[in-house]
Amino acid sequence: MRFTDQLAAVQQRQDSMLCVGLDPDPARFPAGWAGDARRIHDFCAAIVDATKDLVCAFKPQIAYFAAHRAEDQLERLIAHIHRVAPEVPVILDAKRGDIGATAEQYACEAFERYGADALTLSPFMGLDSIEPYQRHADKGLFLLCRTSNPGGADLQGQVLDGGELLYERIARLAATSWNRNGQLGLVVGATFPRELARVRDLAPTLPLLVPGIGAQGGDAEATVRAGWRANAQGATTGPMVVNSSRAILYAGAGEDFATVARQAAAATRELLHRARVGER
Amino acid sequence: MRFTDQLAAVQQRQDSMLCVGLDPDPARFPAGWAGDARRIHDFCAAIVDATKDLVCAFKPQIAYFAAHRAEDQLERLIAHIHRVAPEVPVILDAKRGDIGATAEQYACEAFERYGADALTLSPFMGLDSIEPYQRHADKGLFLLCRTSNPGGADLQGQVLDGGELLYERIARLAATSWNRNGQLGLVVGATFPRELARVRDLAPTLPLLVPGIGAQGGDAEATVRAGWRANAQGATTGPMVVNSSRAILYAGAGEDFATVARQAAAATRELLHRARVGER
Repeated sequence: MRFTDQLAAVQQRQDSMLCVGLDPDPARFPAGWAGDARRIHDFCAAIVDATKDLVCAFKPQIAYFAAHRAEDQLERLIAHIHRVAPEVPVILDAKRGDIGATAEQYACEAFERYGADALTLSPFMGLDSIEPYQRHADKGLFLLCRTSNPGGADLQGQVLDGGELLYERIARLAATSWNRNGQLGLVVGATFPRELARVRDLAPTLPLLVPGIGAQGGDAEATVRAGWRANAQGATTGPMVVNSSRAILYAGAGEDFATVARQAAAATRELLHRARVGER
Repeated sequence: MRFTDQLAAVQQRQDSMLCVGLDPDPARFPAGWAGDARRIHDFCAAIVDATKDLVCAFKPQIAYFAAHRAEDQLERLIAHIHRVAPEVPVILDAKRGDIGATAEQYACEAFERYGADALTLSPFMGLDSIEPYQRHADKGLFLLCRTSNPGGADLQGQVLDGGELLYERIARLAATSWNRNGQLGLVVGATFPRELARVRDLAPTLPLLVPGIGAQGGDAEATVRAGWRANAQGATTGPMVVNSSRAILYAGAGEDFATVARQAAAATRELLHRARVGER
């Protein structure tokens, strides 16, 4: 199944825009596991098991595995997600960007080795650095557009000759000439609702991956209002995937961490749901 | 020792601007090893042993290891380089770029896990995505500026309000306000000598990492003329690290592949040397 269809189906079925980001930091693991990098898989798998009926995607961040030599645990974790929640796509957050020959290797890593359903990419090296991933036509590709960090504006917010901002140019390219197989989506931070609304204007049908609510301070309701719209006929913009990582993973620090994470995930999903209903 | 001092010392001692890029592709390994990903370390180590007195750096490209589940072989390879050529720095080519909390994990991966001396980074997410690496003050950080692929121009060549191009802005930032600890260098493709000369004007003292000669078609002599200059008093611009990967690794396909790789490396080093002497 194509990624965009898979995403639409799971969003409808689970009535959720929530993506749980899997950024395992052993120093923050619950008592008993704290500091133990061998528990990365078990910690994340417990979060997955506790939240899998509440989400539209899981997003493992590869740096947290690579820093601890835990690539094998990432492989097992993604296999676990596919086994216990086959309808929920896995977005591997790796922000790759390199020339064609190297991009082929990264595509192999993400899609063949890890079996991810979608991948985050940097557009900084241009279209020919994206093309090797587009040969995997059933996979989703989220290009960085306006990232959630303050420094994102340093380059993404530069005004181009003619008045367009760099992130606007990226949104326009991704929505038009670059989107050859309909696989592209955009990463836009929840921390900047005005920019998010602008990206939605430029790319009304593209999936948006929106990090930055929770620990990074983005407001869930403002995020949904900016990125998701419906008209009176029931037609809507493209799907939004709103990511929360630390605020869910580390909601609890005791033996019941997975239960507490479920409560945090359910509350966030409900917030997003209410914001969407309010918009209708 | 700080990376820039290490680089200057090895360039003088080995009289070389050549960096050998380690992009191991098992399909191109010599007969007997062809297709065998378990030989990645052995293949690269043979290249290192055969060329270590001819180079100023080695540059492993992490994607080629990750695609084959060969992170352990990359660890062993970098340890091997440090053992047999302790004066030659290892530039890990990973083009990382992410928000601060994640960048800390990537810095841990590159510098603690792998023991790299320098790392390539994407500047697309701005200064706060670079800062976590700057806390490792003895390491070198090469920011992508004008990459060697044709598509590099898609965003890097955009004209900003005021007339500056995006890659020129990056060069200027890297040479001034972003370069807090003197660790920054720039990646500029050999395939675009005019842009390379422009970057050198904007960042006269920064180390430049220049991929794209050899298989990618960049001309070694034009590259050196564009990126390296000396005045009559003997003062020179910052160091240039000129990378060749495939044209050296796969110069031969038989049992003598390492010997043939050494010949190719020696010829490229000599080309670069002659171009530099011609400039004096």
